[in-house]
Amino acid sequence: MVSHLDKKNNPIMVDIAKKNLTQRIAEAEGEVIFDTNSFKKIESLKSKKGSIKNIAIIAGIMGAKETSRLIPLCHNIPIDSVNIEISRNIEKTRIIVKAAVKTNSKTGVEMEALTAVTISCLTIYDMCKYLNKSIKISNIRLISKKGGKSGNFKSQ
Amino acid sequence: MVSHLDKKNNPIMVDIAKKNLTQRIAEAEGEVIFDTNSFKKIESLKSKKGSIKNIAIIAGIMGAKETSRLIPLCHNIPIDSVNIEISRNIEKTRIIVKAAVKTNSKTGVEMEALTAVTISCLTIYDMCKYLNKSIKISNIRLISKKGGKSGNFKSQ
Amino acid sequence: MVSHLDKKNNPIMVDIAKKNLTQRIAEAEGEVIFDTNSFKKIESLKSKKGSIKNIAIIAGIMGAKETSRLIPLCHNIPIDSVNIEISRNIEKTRIIVKAAVKTNSKTGVEMEALTAVTISCLTIYDMCKYLNKSIKISNIRLISKKGGKSGNFKSQ
Amino acid sequence: MVSHLDKKNNPIMVDIAKKNLTQRIAEAEGEVIFDTNSFKKIESLKSKKGSIKNIAIIAGIMGAKETSRLIPLCHNIPIDSVNIEISRNIEKTRIIVKAAVKTNSKTGVEMEALTAVTISCLTIYDMCKYLNKSIKISNIRLISKKGGKSGNFKSQ
Amino acid sequence: MVSHLDKKNNPIMVDIAKKNLTQRIAEAEGEVIFDTNSFKKIESLKSKKGSIKNIAIIAGIMGAKETSRLIPLCHNIPIDSVNIEISRNIEKTRIIVKAAVKTNSKTGVEMEALTAVTISCLTIYDMCKYLNKSIKISNIRLISKKGGKSGNFKSQ
Amino acid sequence: MVSHLDKKNNPIMVDIAKKNLTQRIAEAEGEVIFDTNSFKKIESLKSKKGSIKNIAIIAGIMGAKETSRLIPLCHNIPIDSVNIEISRNIEKTRIIVKAAVKTNSKTGVEMEALTAVTISCLTIYDMCKYLNKSIKISNIRLISKKGGKSGNFKSQ
Repeated sequence: MVSHLDKKNNPIMVDIAKKNLTQRIAEAEGEVIFDTNSFKKIESLKSKKGSIKNIAIIAGIMGAKETSRLIPLCHNIPIDSVNIEISRNIEKTRIIVKAAVKTNSKTGVEMEALTAVTISCLTIYDMCKYLNKSIKISNIRLISKKGGKSGNFKSQ
Repeated sequence: MVSHLDKKNNPIMVDIAKKNLTQRIAEAEGEVIFDTNSFKKIESLKSKKGSIKNIAIIAGIMGAKETSRLIPLCHNIPIDSVNIEISRNIEKTRIIVKAAVKTNSKTGVEMEALTAVTISCLTIYDMCKYLNKSIKISNIRLISKKGGKSGNFKSQ
Repeated sequence: MVSHLDKKNNPIMVDIAKKNLTQRIAEAEGEVIFDTNSFKKIESLKSKKGSIKNIAIIAGIMGAKETSRLIPLCHNIPIDSVNIEISRNIEKTRIIVKAAVKTNSKTGVEMEALTAVTISCLTIYDMCKYLNKSIKISNIRLISKKGGKSGNFKSQ
Repeated sequence: MVSHLDKKNNPIMVDIAKKNLTQRIAEAEGEVIFDTNSFKKIESLKSKKGSIKNIAIIAGIMGAKETSRLIPLCHNIPIDSVNIEISRNIEKTRIIVKAAVKTNSKTGVEMEALTAVTISCLTIYDMCKYLNKSIKISNIRLISKKGGKSGNFKSQ
Repeated sequence: MVSHLDKKNNPIMVDIAKKNLTQRIAEAEGEVIFDTNSFKKIESLKSKKGSIKNIAIIAGIMGAKETSRLIPLCHNIPIDSVNIEISRNIEKTRIIVKAAVKTNSKTGVEMEALTAVTISCLTIYDMCKYLNKSIKISNIRLISKKGGKSGNFKSQ
Repeated sequence: MVSHLDKKNNPIMVDIAKKNLTQRIAEAEGEVIFDTNSFKKIESLKSKKGSIKNIAIIAGIMGAKETSRLIPLCHNIPIDSVNIEISRNIEKTRIIVKAAVKTNSKTGVEMEALTAVTISCLTIYDMCKYLNKSIKISNIRLISKKGGKSGNFKSQ
């Protein structure tokens, strides 16, 4: 059975009333892929890149806090931390966005980490689209997850 | 110069005060990539998939309307339509999400279309993550754009 | 065909790109129905009722501005005015909430007027539920509508 | 004294600092009332109705999570589940919306359940208003409530 | 080191995962400063001022609940109470806004109290700006804070 | 008569249905006042200050877009630009925040400019409060306003 649909196939918010509060952490990752030319321009704009990075981090942190309002069946939970790292893979001409989210709740923060990553990536796209509209966002995925009944997960 | 940073490298919302209202449309696309096994389970849940599709479409439409609140330097503009299509590529075991957004504004709706696609993809991930946490969101990109000073664009 | 579903039965936001801006107004109404006893207590709290009324009006005005974020397929449009009137029907022991909303847009403001009324009514319920949990909200309906292609409407 | 006004008649958010976390549940109900003709059209649109139902359920769940932002004096609390059921009363030509909301908090979720019901009903109205603008939303009320100092409640 | 920047100078949301829930309260204050003439007009509008006061209180309470969505690095936490008092300093022709916010959380509510005060002050400005656009908002500051590891604070 | 209250002293959203779209701009300013010691620490954190500045600018821009959701009787309008400048007055140990907002609407953007300034100031406070809780936000005021029926304004 699909976890978010009931027996009659209607959407439900999973009932977590009887679950315990547990310490949880989820890490997600994604990439913004540039053509060589645009990536070089970003490169040469070194001092400016600091700002792009800061704006994308802020957008990701604020995005994580919006998760339950964007993903219809997500629970609204207090978030203990959002940590976003943005780095470059020069060889592959891409920007890598990593997000780690923590909570002490009845449910996990996978969606919060994934939402943080995608909003960061979209913000980078928004600030760079004047260079080339073919910039692509890819490989958004869960990297790891700790805590909760379903146990730990680590992507291979 | 980066379009969203001023001469001193500070973030700015691009000034569109002197631009005219023009009819604009943007189309974006993205994919949710499954392992064969999970994709088959989604397959066999045919009647249930209808609901997954509906929920993902609704999330994408509502996400498009949130764009200016999520992407820090986006303008808030009235949206004339959001149209989301969700289909399957059975061979490649992936779900394809397409969004088309229209407006009659001083600025385009590329970010709205891309945001609609990513929120739809995240919603599909959320509903299928019980099957496999390695599901991946990829190839989020602009497909086409019409209207506005920077002219038309069509991805190759 | 249902107006908010496409040929394949998927939800769509109706495309208003080719419609003209026109002056539009919509009026809606609703009631909060009390038992005699609770209504008398509200009655005797005359000076206090002023505040209840103000809070319910403010909630309704703010609710009208949230309409497109609450009703999935509503368009986000600039609102020119929201006017809320709250009166009592002493004989029938109920509070009457009326809302009139204006815009100059491609689509109407029926949903904005109805949302304003329901949020006002819910706010009155919230402030009076300590008196009696059986208070009821009823008869929420469109009273009139002017402007737009589908013409004028007046409830009988 | 009105519970949401202080001694000087100013609005207050009730202070729940000294209350304990307790398991709470609230159920609410409401109806969308059609004329016979429109109700039949909804009837004959059977396959399509599935979607209307799904969209209304999603809107209600998301609406429940917005309660503290819509009702001025409501507390923001984590919600453990929202469950919405939509059925038809064919004889009385109406759609019945029921919502059950759970939390483990210092305050109850009556307003969350009532907000879920009204947003679901408004969404149904929005999707059916092309049939007849005289569709009415009525009988929005609390059905039951468990947990908390004020004890249990069951409507008669 | 700045508390909201990591070692590489990137913005972070402070990690509160290992902190305990503690009872916390924060009080903030601010002023709206009028010219003598405008202040007298507000004075003579005595019956009307009741409403201005109510609207400003409601705006402040709702603003407190929005804090984590407005201040980028604030945590989203459940708020136990918001209490706003509005009084006049006739001699100095100004309106004084005080806010007290309580929570039982891992982090304090200083920003919630300060946000409540500023949104209240801005709302008063909005309602009085027709009198004189030179009205000024000043002296927004923390008055006291109790609970949490950094200890108590009382402004001098 | 107070502009936001009707004849019966109830709150109203001013009706702008018959007003024309005009080009409008509003500028506001505010200050964050430090003690000498804390200001010096901010000073010595030069490289880090870049980030504080960026975060405060982003918060102000996003805050401007939230104005109609925070100030109860404000109209929701499309904003053409938000420009925020942050500088230091070393002699007076304070940070100065200026915001300029443009629109082409039926109503002005004074509240948007003032909201941008206050949210920027609050964000600076949030990032510096670890230094000294007595940091103060002051002198928030309108600097100038152009466009609209009430004419231009320039503070003295």
